[in-house]
Amino acid sequence: MYFCYSLNGSVMQKKPLILVTNDDGISAPGIRALISCMVELGTVVVVAPDSPQSAMGHAITINNTLHLNKISDEQALVTEYSCSGTPVDCVKMAISEVLKQKPDLCVSGINHGSNSSINVIYSGTMSAALEAGIEGIPAIGFSLLDYNWNADFEQIKPFVLSIASRVLQNKLPEGTILNVNFPKLKKESIKGIKICRQAKAIWQEKFDKRTTPFGKDYYWLTGEFINLDKGEDTDEWALANDYISIVPVQYDLTAHHAIQTLNSWEF
Amino acid sequence: MYFCYSLNGSVMQKKPLILVTNDDGISAPGIRALISCMVELGTVVVVAPDSPQSAMGHAITINNTLHLNKISDEQALVTEYSCSGTPVDCVKMAISEVLKQKPDLCVSGINHGSNSSINVIYSGTMSAALEAGIEGIPAIGFSLLDYNWNADFEQIKPFVLSIASRVLQNKLPEGTILNVNFPKLKKESIKGIKICRQAKAIWQEKFDKRTTPFGKDYYWLTGEFINLDKGEDTDEWALANDYISIVPVQYDLTAHHAIQTLNSWEF
Repeated sequence: MYFCYSLNGSVMQKKPLILVTNDDGISAPGIRALISCMVELGTVVVVAPDSPQSAMGHAITINNTLHLNKISDEQALVTEYSCSGTPVDCVKMAISEVLKQKPDLCVSGINHGSNSSINVIYSGTMSAALEAGIEGIPAIGFSLLDYNWNADFEQIKPFVLSIASRVLQNKLPEGTILNVNFPKLKKESIKGIKICRQAKAIWQEKFDKRTTPFGKDYYWLTGEFINLDKGEDTDEWALANDYISIVPVQYDLTAHHAIQTLNSWEF
Repeated sequence: MYFCYSLNGSVMQKKPLILVTNDDGISAPGIRALISCMVELGTVVVVAPDSPQSAMGHAITINNTLHLNKISDEQALVTEYSCSGTPVDCVKMAISEVLKQKPDLCVSGINHGSNSSINVIYSGTMSAALEAGIEGIPAIGFSLLDYNWNADFEQIKPFVLSIASRVLQNKLPEGTILNVNFPKLKKESIKGIKICRQAKAIWQEKFDKRTTPFGKDYYWLTGEFINLDKGEDTDEWALANDYISIVPVQYDLTAHHAIQTLNSWEF
């Protein structure tokens, strides 16, 4: 709930300020779906990459200049900026140069494709949400398990709204953000929401080696996702069993359980 | 200890295979210092970025081609490859295309500048080590708190050797890698090694706004590091008090403590 007090002491409800970003770029259908949900919850400002920035992880731009362009007109319901940087740059610029304050919520996505399990580490979508979390802003990354540019985001909108509302209402446990993944299903086939842990999985690389017209070797990075985790409390299990997965994600990477072991080592 | 058995059953010591990478680029003095340490411990193969890749986080190259060039000659003690990709790409290419096996150890660095505290999230050096960890390889990221290109890495070499030896000997607790940071001090002024947790800190952004010769605004990302953590068990405390900090780092980002809270929410 967002309240503020008017000069005469009466309580007025204040609309929450919501920052929207992504990694597929500002024109992606996924971010358009997310914006259409967020306008039902608050005042929306969009700062998103001007080009696709998938798999950029937590990269920031320190060896190059950054450009910010207001792309919405004055009459628009939603204020929108495109940014030449990475998803993390977008969040930093939004807070520092556009909003000049911290929003009440930051949402990132809806990503075209999964960010479950180990994908969280490579994902620009999740890194943008993580950056907001580091800055103390409640944050959620949303992803749909459908890489198709024309994926059907309509099916998941009610869930996006419900999850974002709860986060606005309850905030989030300190130091955490949410990684939300949706199975590619019709609304009525989704069984519900499961709070999960990140499944243990890897990408098994396969480099596709080719030769340029000038005889020089080059490579394309491809790979196969391998789930190594049989647990039924994981995001991979939930998604395979028609549930929406929510993993609370932290940015304190300390492996606290390993400290005692290392203290027993003689260096 | 690495042993293998010869055909007649006698035990022969086998040299461990060590992969070296970094994010400052293959010609940086920091990686040269690290290579000179590692040749004392095993057979060294270097696969490192052909240009600086600082602050690339866990970015990977999926929308562009990758190039790999062998830059050492046949007589060289150490085999070296430069790669056009990010630090994480280097580790993936090293395992899949260069070594065609998993090394016994992966070391990344020595970074010119700190990767303590929240820097671990943005760091290409640490992401390379993390990628090796995800692939099940014992891995260490080394960083010196001196951004200078001509930083004095000689002072820390004995500690680098000692830490890497211990990891080769003991392996690491499952699912963890090490984030090692060195204070900028003479060898004899370093008080020892502390096993630490990641300090809670943020970068407070300051965008340096400028105007192009053509009248268009652009920005440089700058910022100030702010330590919000008064704990004496953190990496920031250790470094400020003349200790080497070692933080065990994990890539399971699940905030396990938050699962119960979220389970009590009604979506």
